[in-house]
Amino acid sequence: MTINKLSQITHLIESELNQFNDRFKKSLKSNVSLVDLVARYILKQKGKKIRPVLVLLSSKIGGEINERSYRGATLVELLHTATLVHDDVVDNAETRRGFPSINAVWKNKVAVLMGDYLLSRGLMLSVEGDDFDFLRVITNTVKRMSEGELLQISKTRKLDNDQETYFKIISDKTASLLSTCCEIGIRSSTTNEDKIIALREFGENLGMAFQIRDDILDFIGTKKIFGKPLGGDIKEKKLTLPLIYALKQASDRESKKIISNVKSGGKKVQVEDVIEFVKKYNGIDYAVKVSNDFADKAIQCLSIFEASETKAALESLVSFVIERKN
Amino acid sequence: MTINKLSQITHLIESELNQFNDRFKKSLKSNVSLVDLVARYILKQKGKKIRPVLVLLSSKIGGEINERSYRGATLVELLHTATLVHDDVVDNAETRRGFPSINAVWKNKVAVLMGDYLLSRGLMLSVEGDDFDFLRVITNTVKRMSEGELLQISKTRKLDNDQETYFKIISDKTASLLSTCCEIGIRSSTTNEDKIIALREFGENLGMAFQIRDDILDFIGTKKIFGKPLGGDIKEKKLTLPLIYALKQASDRESKKIISNVKSGGKKVQVEDVIEFVKKYNGIDYAVKVSNDFADKAIQCLSIFEASETKAALESLVSFVIERKN
Repeated sequence: MTINKLSQITHLIESELNQFNDRFKKSLKSNVSLVDLVARYILKQKGKKIRPVLVLLSSKIGGEINERSYRGATLVELLHTATLVHDDVVDNAETRRGFPSINAVWKNKVAVLMGDYLLSRGLMLSVEGDDFDFLRVITNTVKRMSEGELLQISKTRKLDNDQETYFKIISDKTASLLSTCCEIGIRSSTTNEDKIIALREFGENLGMAFQIRDDILDFIGTKKIFGKPLGGDIKEKKLTLPLIYALKQASDRESKKIISNVKSGGKKVQVEDVIEFVKKYNGIDYAVKVSNDFADKAIQCLSIFEASETKAALESLVSFVIERKN
Repeated sequence: MTINKLSQITHLIESELNQFNDRFKKSLKSNVSLVDLVARYILKQKGKKIRPVLVLLSSKIGGEINERSYRGATLVELLHTATLVHDDVVDNAETRRGFPSINAVWKNKVAVLMGDYLLSRGLMLSVEGDDFDFLRVITNTVKRMSEGELLQISKTRKLDNDQETYFKIISDKTASLLSTCCEIGIRSSTTNEDKIIALREFGENLGMAFQIRDDILDFIGTKKIFGKPLGGDIKEKKLTLPLIYALKQASDRESKKIISNVKSGGKKVQVEDVIEFVKKYNGIDYAVKVSNDFADKAIQCLSIFEASETKAALESLVSFVIERKN
């Protein structure tokens, strides 16, 4: 079965997701009216909610979804939202999920402070719930995410990314949080360390597949309605896997030409030429293969769990991630 | 005795401050070279270190300075540094302590991510040390600080700040952290709840006096070499206590004229006129009185402690805060 929509997977936890949504909404309430205003704006922009889904499914595969699972799901979604708000400052993004970004509407300063506020709200939930095991995991995740982004920025400036560094960057900036979702989810329902480790690894591999797919989507498909437009990474001088691979396959002369094209930056970049180059040297095919390999590893991590509807849902989530078109 | 320099107070904990400095330096190490580069840049800009001083003196008045005290001092200084780095994005500041700001040198995105990184490093120290009591205090502080800044931004836009809201803003954005320094410090050396509460209150009142002094310094003295130039708040449309008071004393007509002057914003503001107006209506004298009242309250909070060198040092710190010229 091809998974086109996340709802094909999440029907299993539909009422739990509604419960999560209520709690997430509540967690954004504030006495400061500007905070409330920005929070309501954030709530209008419904994302895929893939992280809370992952927390809830992970709780369910470990035992039963409970209060701690909901707090964990709210924590990761708050952290994810905080990083999105900060990322928009980082990327100088003007839109997010089809809406003008917070920094575009309220300027950078509100975006920076709002991100700090959202992060602190998430951490406070864990503190109030005595979920110190969550805090142990999440603070390391925050560190890895910011370090990953900073590493990407330095590589972007020098345009000298290689596959190994690329893997480190996407592991830190993306896979770490998906892995954390799984770990927090299953920790809320079991103390079985083997299962916890297996599911954390599942999340790490899923996250790698997810980000590589994201990077592939920058090169293929039509101009997207939501999210970043085609070639956005190229214009920002981010060297991702399809291009890193193609650059290694091509002759020095041809590679240098492409690099100098990307170096021109922004609107001056001939995006079509770069995409054509990547396709000519099978950069997309290679990245698809690598993404599939990570997806396979993710599936293997689940072997410790007995067959169940929840396990099937997690497997479907893997398919969804590597097949998605946006 | 007039306290002109913090070193007159800190000689009591000189070797402990050196130990703290070593730990702070170590906490900034990273494998990502860009992070290391920015961290070294931060270390070159020696601030007053008033927060770690407060943690260490608070530990000493409660018992003995120990490992947990050092972790607490490092935690608050990392958080403080994180907020400074984010504040520079918030304020679009071009300099900080006489150096070009991080956002001016490395752009906003590096500043945002570096702030996130510093905060996570601080939290990780507490997690690794099992200092969950610190985390309980500090996460609420992070929330209050961002909420306070956001409240200030909304009031700045409308130019309608009153004394009550002003107190709320400075309590959240400044006093909360100084209070947290005291609480974390004394929690590291005693479990006596009465003493902990007394010292937390001391920190809150000290913080209020500190921020009001800061706001007074925007109106008096000569152009500063370090820090914000004279009239910086006025140009940013921040209504602080001296001006809030003067606006209430003056006639409607005169107040409206001043407000419309401030509203013009940035370089267009006739700073000298605003300062003259504030002085005419005793705004400075009033703010000095309020600042002194908070200072007195802070001193009173210390009455629970027996006389000691450490107590005297904390009292001197109060004098330093309300007498400082920059």
